[in-house]
Amino acid sequence: MKARQQTSFLFDLDGTLVDSVYDHVIAWHYALMEEGIEVSLWRLHRKIGMSGGLFAKALARETGRDFDEATLNRLRQSHARHYGQVSKQTRPLPGARELLKYLSDNDIPWAIATSGRMETAGPVLEILGVNLKKTVVITRDLVRYAKPDPDLFLAAAEKLGVSIETSCVVGNSIWDMLAARRARGLGIGLLSGGYGTEELERSGAYRVYDDPADLLDHIDEVGGRR
Amino acid sequence: MKARQQTSFLFDLDGTLVDSVYDHVIAWHYALMEEGIEVSLWRLHRKIGMSGGLFAKALARETGRDFDEATLNRLRQSHARHYGQVSKQTRPLPGARELLKYLSDNDIPWAIATSGRMETAGPVLEILGVNLKKTVVITRDLVRYAKPDPDLFLAAAEKLGVSIETSCVVGNSIWDMLAARRARGLGIGLLSGGYGTEELERSGAYRVYDDPADLLDHIDEVGGRR
Repeated sequence: MKARQQTSFLFDLDGTLVDSVYDHVIAWHYALMEEGIEVSLWRLHRKIGMSGGLFAKALARETGRDFDEATLNRLRQSHARHYGQVSKQTRPLPGARELLKYLSDNDIPWAIATSGRMETAGPVLEILGVNLKKTVVITRDLVRYAKPDPDLFLAAAEKLGVSIETSCVVGNSIWDMLAARRARGLGIGLLSGGYGTEELERSGAYRVYDDPADLLDHIDEVGGRR
Repeated sequence: MKARQQTSFLFDLDGTLVDSVYDHVIAWHYALMEEGIEVSLWRLHRKIGMSGGLFAKALARETGRDFDEATLNRLRQSHARHYGQVSKQTRPLPGARELLKYLSDNDIPWAIATSGRMETAGPVLEILGVNLKKTVVITRDLVRYAKPDPDLFLAAAEKLGVSIETSCVVGNSIWDMLAARRARGLGIGLLSGGYGTEELERSGAYRVYDDPADLLDHIDEVGGRR
């Protein structure tokens, strides 16, 4: 008889554990307006969670203009400034703390892997009550390529000492689901970032739940028990 | 030989002609926070475009609490105040003015039908450059039931003097598409309010475009020529 496979959980952060996607959308909107660049808000929404480099490339393609390094730096700083003004009010998504506590209490390995830098992720991790000394957190600062490249999730699995093939990758954006497939993990989609069920399924989610509370409520469906 | 059917266009406003959906999401979020009510932002996003009464009912169901008339009035006023602070910066969606001009220039009847009240819709219509003396605009003040009830679109068709059966109902939310079906018009979905293609198709859209510019680019697909 083969030993039972142990499931692990690798979480995206924004829109998956904390309710911050819409704040990021608005912050990018203000940053771009300061540069005189007009991009519809839904197009920004659809890009949250991508690596910053790909975000800029997609923007360049859609606006038909090239951004030099200085402009990109100003945009990045301006986004961080606007986001910083609202991120103090960011709330954990319903059930996020309870889900992480459940996993810890049941000795199920979990980690956080985000395309954001520690500069913007740090305050939000604090609001979520994550103990940075005890938790594996992989930010954009630690890998060469962020989502939809698989590096963040691969690094998280490696640091946890678990196999990516038996890990559930939990995210709210199609970039998480694409990265999950490329990493060969099992993608689980959450609606709490504002994407629809069908979009997440079409990008590879094998299950879709409302938010962390709903995932915790159905944790047995995805192997989250000992 | 039967006479050619003339197509008309009945437009939703927020997220369909102007880039205001995300502003409404944030404004409701602030209004609810002032009442100590916490609702995830994606759940607010999914409700924009509904009638205010149904919006409140859905909120009550999801938060498990009842709102009395006084609370609802405070929420409505607080939303209008927060929205008013950002709505001056609202931009028409790409191609919105050009699309309306194209229809007018080609004598194709069109109207605007919104679940919003004139109080919030008025300033945005001005930004869009709509001449209220020449344009049929049906707001929530003018009908008993707003979307997803069909009344707004039926009233718009009636005031235009066109048949709803040969009208295209253009909107960005599933509430527009449900209202379109109940009114027996042809639903056309736009992604510019932040819903995905599949969500709009599943709620009845027979075509989905990015935004007004993309619709104008494909106007021959939906009968928009003389």
